[in-house]
Amino acid sequence: MRMSDLILKKKHGEILTKEEITFMISKYSSDEIPDYQMAAFAMAVCFQGMDDAEVSYLTHEMAFSGDTIDLSGIDGIKVDKHSSGGVGDKTSLIVLPLVASLGIKVAKMSGRGLGHTGGTLDKLEAIEGFRIELSDDEFIQTVNEVGISLIGQTLNLVPADKKLYGLRDATGTVDSIPLIASSIMSKKIASGADAIVLDVKVGSGAFMKTVDDAKELAKLMVSIGSKLNRKTVAILSNMEEPLGHEVGNANEIKEVVEVLKGHGETKLTELCLELAAQMMVLGEKQSNKEEAIVELREAISSGKALEKFKEFIEAQGGNSGFIDDYSLLPQAKETIEVLSETSGYITAIDAEEVGISAMLLGAGRKTKADKIDYAVGITVLKKTGSKVEKGDVIAHIHSNGNHEDSVAKLKKAFTIENTAPVVDPIIYEVIQ
Amino acid sequence: MRMSDLILKKKHGEILTKEEITFMISKYSSDEIPDYQMAAFAMAVCFQGMDDAEVSYLTHEMAFSGDTIDLSGIDGIKVDKHSSGGVGDKTSLIVLPLVASLGIKVAKMSGRGLGHTGGTLDKLEAIEGFRIELSDDEFIQTVNEVGISLIGQTLNLVPADKKLYGLRDATGTVDSIPLIASSIMSKKIASGADAIVLDVKVGSGAFMKTVDDAKELAKLMVSIGSKLNRKTVAILSNMEEPLGHEVGNANEIKEVVEVLKGHGETKLTELCLELAAQMMVLGEKQSNKEEAIVELREAISSGKALEKFKEFIEAQGGNSGFIDDYSLLPQAKETIEVLSETSGYITAIDAEEVGISAMLLGAGRKTKADKIDYAVGITVLKKTGSKVEKGDVIAHIHSNGNHEDSVAKLKKAFTIENTAPVVDPIIYEVIQ
Repeated sequence: MRMSDLILKKKHGEILTKEEITFMISKYSSDEIPDYQMAAFAMAVCFQGMDDAEVSYLTHEMAFSGDTIDLSGIDGIKVDKHSSGGVGDKTSLIVLPLVASLGIKVAKMSGRGLGHTGGTLDKLEAIEGFRIELSDDEFIQTVNEVGISLIGQTLNLVPADKKLYGLRDATGTVDSIPLIASSIMSKKIASGADAIVLDVKVGSGAFMKTVDDAKELAKLMVSIGSKLNRKTVAILSNMEEPLGHEVGNANEIKEVVEVLKGHGETKLTELCLELAAQMMVLGEKQSNKEEAIVELREAISSGKALEKFKEFIEAQGGNSGFIDDYSLLPQAKETIEVLSETSGYITAIDAEEVGISAMLLGAGRKTKADKIDYAVGITVLKKTGSKVEKGDVIAHIHSNGNHEDSVAKLKKAFTIENTAPVVDPIIYEVIQ
Repeated sequence: MRMSDLILKKKHGEILTKEEITFMISKYSSDEIPDYQMAAFAMAVCFQGMDDAEVSYLTHEMAFSGDTIDLSGIDGIKVDKHSSGGVGDKTSLIVLPLVASLGIKVAKMSGRGLGHTGGTLDKLEAIEGFRIELSDDEFIQTVNEVGISLIGQTLNLVPADKKLYGLRDATGTVDSIPLIASSIMSKKIASGADAIVLDVKVGSGAFMKTVDDAKELAKLMVSIGSKLNRKTVAILSNMEEPLGHEVGNANEIKEVVEVLKGHGETKLTELCLELAAQMMVLGEKQSNKEEAIVELREAISSGKALEKFKEFIEAQGGNSGFIDDYSLLPQAKETIEVLSETSGYITAIDAEEVGISAMLLGAGRKTKADKIDYAVGITVLKKTGSKVEKGDVIAHIHSNGNHEDSVAKLKKAFTIENTAPVVDPIIYEVIQ
């Protein structure tokens, strides 16, 4: 078998066999296929696509290209949740304790990435004392005792995916739906998931800009899951404006607590309930979504979910005092009020611009070497559809230093017009 | 400027600027752009193409990426001839002495390649004593005194093209017409040509299998020539069956002499006259092609062309005795008669199969390390359109050893049917 023939096959729009994909990924992993051949292949995939079977072979090969996480020490169906990433997305920190409070075992190892704000692990590190480094035994033990544990990744998961992703980034081949789908799903499978709930974001703050693209990606991932025996459900959710009110790290933790207390912003709460309900069904704790949602609402109103969150924080060494006293979270030196410059209706809040504004404050990482400032961030007080008067405070900027660029960016993110907009739903569609 | 952005631009079907192409080729030449980025770019070009201006910038950058041949020591317009390669293609060895005999200065440095038979230089080396290694001064002096010199390439011509060609070969991106066109034309320009006559072959024995593809390639090369101020004419010629009767090295030299003596096969002679006439016009020795052809025919019938060939061979140390006594050329030990197995009309002779048959005898190089046997080869006695009886000798195989596979291949190359075929012309079209 020769890689140059496989490139030509894909270039001519043909379908690769399982054996060919196994050959390709194993030889690429062992550096026997050079980057230049894989780059040409990836570009050919951008034009010719891959069919569902090909993508599932690719996913399988990448998933098993390195270490895998062994969750066999935990009883029950392990349901993982994945978000394709957005601005103000703190759903994992709400959904995971919520389902854990109802008996779903949550065992999640995450990597850190680059982004407008920190990821889930970074947000947790805004909490005093919280440890994301547990030994494998401590991790499994915590899940078995508390029902939930979130830790940093120490294993060498999906090295083939890492290598290919780095190459795609440099060769203009990132935006291929089959390659995106296999990259996401290979990580989930290597992480030991039996079933997967995917939150595929659509809109200005997401990687997928249109519902059609997001739907194609979601359908493909569900199909991969099915082919590889992992029950998978994908939710297409709205990421035109930031999710909830808070964008940052410590302030997002505050919002997590607000949702678990039952005071969360409506759309954020709705999305979390949908994600959690799908996890309940896949984890076989409920037979249908509607009943799951009733039970989840009860877990919030009874305080059960918040209690599980507290247990989780304490089990990993965190000081849970902030749950009742937000001032125990990192606080920024200054809060700047951002005022509406006109009267009318907010018709759009560009999530990407808000994200960049938060990044400029120091809330995220542009390069791996960047340090996150947990205290800084943005509070979006008025969301899309709100009526505002000139001079109304529409947002707060929590700053620890220079913030002029951030204020300018944030102002530009808001569109205010004379007519009230038709506000899109938070959930477009569920694919299963 | 970042290469990843240029890849994306091409992927999206946009046109690169001169500055962008200059950046790309210069940084690729200096290894600052890695192979994997260039491979992705080449694949994007396979799908999105390049416009005439882009290809001419690319050609120019590659032409001047290394050494160039300085022909300023030779008076007059230097007209080069290039063939896209075929089976039995000995036209250069006929056309160049022919036009040299009428005052066109011929100064040609060639590389050696892989192929079914040797290239022009290899064929010349079948002649006893012939030297293809002259110093630069000897080369220019020979052209000025004799009017013609053909030598091996010692300079580092078009390194960017060499690097890119090697990469394309490994990444399934060879068959892109813009990349083929710029590769050919960059070499011609680096070789010091003022004007260029291109013989673009079409058919089973050629790289271009259809007239449409060949025409697209030819038009693009003529356009590049025009944009880079090199008058260029392209002839689309038929390469379904081998050109002339002889396929090999020494036997092709014999056929060269036959044509120069006026006894050449009709189609081979016709093509040589067309190529030579175009060179005469571009070299401004004649104002129109028809008059050029009259003059060229005279040069053959008067013996002037053959005399120039003899002078050329002697000027480079060759023993010209073979011109009157072909037995002075390398002779194979055995001649095998290939017989027709049926009666009817020859409707096709697959040039590629004949080429492989010659290669199996040892007439060509599969790898750079292979040694050519000058004596071996094939004589195609009956060409397409001929009526044959079962048992007629249709070809000779000149062998120095094992030839079973070669005989089998050669037999397979002939198609014999009941009805006489419509025979295609040797020249399809002239593009200028």
